[in-house]
Amino acid sequence: MLVVQKYGGTSVGTLERIRTCAMRCLETQRAATSLVVVVSAMSGETNRLIALSNQLLAFGHAVASEAQPNTATWVAPEKSGDHDHERELDQLVSTGEKVSAALLAMAIQDLGGKATSLVGHQLGLQTDRNFTRARIRTIDRERIDRELASGRIVVCAGFQGIDSDGNITTLGRGGSDTSAVALAAALKAATCEILTDVDGVYTTDPRIVPGARKIARMTYEEMLELASLGAKVLQIRSVEFAMKYGVRVHVRSSLNQNEGTWIVPEDNSMESVVVAGVALDRNEAKVTVSNVPDVPGTLANLFGRLGEAGIVVDMIIQNTSRASAADVTFTVPENELERSVALLRNVPFVADGRSGIETDRDICKISIVGVGMRTHAGVAAKAFSLLSSEGINIQMVATSEIKVSVIVHERYGELALRALHDGFGVGTPPSL
Amino acid sequence: MLVVQKYGGTSVGTLERIRTCAMRCLETQRAATSLVVVVSAMSGETNRLIALSNQLLAFGHAVASEAQPNTATWVAPEKSGDHDHERELDQLVSTGEKVSAALLAMAIQDLGGKATSLVGHQLGLQTDRNFTRARIRTIDRERIDRELASGRIVVCAGFQGIDSDGNITTLGRGGSDTSAVALAAALKAATCEILTDVDGVYTTDPRIVPGARKIARMTYEEMLELASLGAKVLQIRSVEFAMKYGVRVHVRSSLNQNEGTWIVPEDNSMESVVVAGVALDRNEAKVTVSNVPDVPGTLANLFGRLGEAGIVVDMIIQNTSRASAADVTFTVPENELERSVALLRNVPFVADGRSGIETDRDICKISIVGVGMRTHAGVAAKAFSLLSSEGINIQMVATSEIKVSVIVHERYGELALRALHDGFGVGTPPSL
Repeated sequence: MLVVQKYGGTSVGTLERIRTCAMRCLETQRAATSLVVVVSAMSGETNRLIALSNQLLAFGHAVASEAQPNTATWVAPEKSGDHDHERELDQLVSTGEKVSAALLAMAIQDLGGKATSLVGHQLGLQTDRNFTRARIRTIDRERIDRELASGRIVVCAGFQGIDSDGNITTLGRGGSDTSAVALAAALKAATCEILTDVDGVYTTDPRIVPGARKIARMTYEEMLELASLGAKVLQIRSVEFAMKYGVRVHVRSSLNQNEGTWIVPEDNSMESVVVAGVALDRNEAKVTVSNVPDVPGTLANLFGRLGEAGIVVDMIIQNTSRASAADVTFTVPENELERSVALLRNVPFVADGRSGIETDRDICKISIVGVGMRTHAGVAAKAFSLLSSEGINIQMVATSEIKVSVIVHERYGELALRALHDGFGVGTPPSL
Repeated sequence: MLVVQKYGGTSVGTLERIRTCAMRCLETQRAATSLVVVVSAMSGETNRLIALSNQLLAFGHAVASEAQPNTATWVAPEKSGDHDHERELDQLVSTGEKVSAALLAMAIQDLGGKATSLVGHQLGLQTDRNFTRARIRTIDRERIDRELASGRIVVCAGFQGIDSDGNITTLGRGGSDTSAVALAAALKAATCEILTDVDGVYTTDPRIVPGARKIARMTYEEMLELASLGAKVLQIRSVEFAMKYGVRVHVRSSLNQNEGTWIVPEDNSMESVVVAGVALDRNEAKVTVSNVPDVPGTLANLFGRLGEAGIVVDMIIQNTSRASAADVTFTVPENELERSVALLRNVPFVADGRSGIETDRDICKISIVGVGMRTHAGVAAKAFSLLSSEGINIQMVATSEIKVSVIVHERYGELALRALHDGFGVGTPPSL
C-alpha cells in the first residue's frame, strides 16, 4: 500500500521537528510499505527568499533615485517583461523546499532508513509556464517508482515543477498541498495525508463557537464550500484536484496520532448530516449599483470589467422592482473594493450619472454547508428563522445545492455563527 | 565575442554587491556582445547549509544517546551508505548557488538588461556520480546558446552539475572556478574572467615580501607550480582544466577595472622571465625512514600504503649511502603527519624494528617557478648560493623543468622567500 504524506512548513520548521517528521515517516513506511513524502519549505524560509528579492529591487530603486535626484530628467530603464522576473522568482523561491527535502532525507537516513530527495526536474512533475502560479500538466512517475522499488522513502520538494523547457515553476502559495494530492493521484496512493499543526477541519471557528467540533468525514464539495474554514489547513486548489481524481485526503496533526478529518467522495451515510459546517467570512464588501438600465448587455458590461481585472465577484442580486431600471448588489473581496469602484466609475451609465454606486464594508458572510441539504427541505427557511429569532437582519441571500449563504451586518457575524451552529446541532457528532 | 565571468562568494556576498556585479555584467555584455556569468553562493551560505546538515545529525546523535543511556544495549541503527548521505548533501548545498544566480539575474533585469539564470539540470553540465567531488564529463550548450541568441546574459549557478540520472552533484570547494573554465572551454569563449576580491596573482606573498608584484602574465604550468600562491585566488583544478583546453583565464578584482593576472598558454616572450614567482608553503612536515632495506619493492610498499590512504607525498629523497640499506626522506601535509606515521609503523621492516621513523614539523618549502628556467642554466645553483649567503641550511631539494623547491627550517622561511624574490629580481617588471 502506498501512502503520500505532506508536511507543512511548521512541521519542518526546525531541525528538531525535521527529526520528528523523519521518525513518523519511518513508522508510516513500516505500516504502509511504501511512502512518498512532500515537504514545504521550513517555516519563514519562503518569506525570507521573497524578502531578499524585494530588498534587492527596493535597494536598486533607492540607489537609482539617489543617483538621479532630478526625477524630471531621469528615465527609468526599460524593464524586461514580468515573465522574466517571475521566472527568476520561481528559480529563487523553489530552493526553500529543496533544502527541507534534502534535510528530511538525511534525517531519515540518519535514523537507519533509506530515503532520497527528489527536487525540480527529478520529480517528473510538469506544469504549464505560468510562473508563480503554474498548473500541473503531467506527472512522470518513472523515477519515483524506481526509488520506491529500492525500498526508499521518496522525499519530494513540494510547491514546484518544471515546464516543458526545464524552467522551474511554482504552484502558488500553499502549493505543496496540491503537489501532494497530484502525486497521490498519479501514484494511485491509498491516502494522501496532510500533516499540519492543527487537528483537522472544524465545524466552525472554535475561537468563536466553543461547541465547534472536529469533522470526522466530509465531501470534497463541502470542503470547497467551507473554504474559509479549510483555507488555513490546506490549499483549496488541492481539494479540487482531489475531487477530480478521487484522492482520499486525511488532514491531521503532525504532533500526535489522532484521527483528523477525512475528505472523501460522497457516500450515502453523509446525507444524514444536514449541515456539515458553518463558516464566517469577514473579508467581503458590498457594492450596490443603483438604476442600472434594464437592457441586454448591461450586466455583462458591469461584471465583464471586474472579471477582466481579476476581481472575483461573489454574491450577485438583481432587484428588478421598477420597469426600466434595476438595482444590482454584489460582494467583492474587501481589499479589492477601491479598485472595483474605480473600474465601475468608467462604465458609461455610471460615468454619465444615470447610475450611482454605494459601498458597505461593514458586512460579513455566513455560510452553512452540507451535502445533506440536497435531500432535506426547508434548510434555508430554518436558517432564516434562527437568525430572525436573534433579531439579525439578512441583507442578501445566495444558495447552492449544498450551501446557504447570507450577508449580515458585521457586528452580528459571531452571533449569527453561533445561532446557526447551535440551531442545526452541528456540534453534535453524527450517528452514522 | 563571448566572455565568461565568474563572481566569487564575496563578490555576491550582499544584495548591494549583487547589484554592483549586475552593473559590471551589463558593461561587459556591451563590450563583449555575449556574456555567460558563473556565480558562487553568497559568502557564508555554503557554510550555513553544511552547518544545518551537521547540526541535524549531531542533534540526532545527542538525542539517541540520551534516549538510550545504556550504551551497552543500545545498537546503532544500520546506516544507509555514505553515497546516499553525500547525494543529499549535494542536493542541499547546491541551493546556495541557485539563490545567488536567481538574484543576480533579477538585478540585471532590474537595471534594464535581459538575463536568465540556469541551475542544476538546465545548465547541461553533466558529471560523474562522485557526489561532493564530481568531475565534469560533458557540457550540452544548447540551452545556453539559445539564451545567448535571444540577447540574454546567462547567469549559471556554479559548483554544480547533474549525473546521467539527473542527480545533483557538486564539484568540490571552489568548484565554481572549474564550472567557469569548463563553460568557457565548451563555449569557446575568448576569455574566462575570474572576478575576486584580490587584484590578481602576486610574485610572492606581499605580506612577507614588500617588493611582491602583481604578475601580468603567466603560464598554466607556472600557476600550477605556484599553487600555494594561487590557491586563495582560484581553484587549482580549474587551471588544469584551462591548460587542457587552452582557456585564457584572467584573474582580476571585481571592485575595479584594473588588469589582473592573465593565465595563458606559453609564448616565446615568457621565457625571458626566468623566475615568475616564489612561493612559501608552511603546511608540510618531513618524515625520515632510516635503514630501509635496499631490495626491490620496499619503496612501493612504503608509499603504496600512504597513497591508498589518500595521503599526498610531495618531495622524496632516497639516500643510498650504505650498501644494503638506505634512508628515505619525504614530506607530507602537516595535518596528515600522525596518520602517515601510524600507517608506516605497520610496514614489516618498521614493525620488526629494522627501520626507524623520525619526523620534523618545523620545516617549510620554498619554491621558485618559471618557464624560463628551461632555457636558463644555473638557476638552481643561483638559488642555493642566494640561500647560502644568508646562512640558510638546505635540508632537501627537488627540481622539475620549471621549478626548484627547497626544504629549510621553518624559522628561515620568510628570510629565504625574500632572498630568492630579491635575488632573482622577481619584483622588477619584465621588459617584454
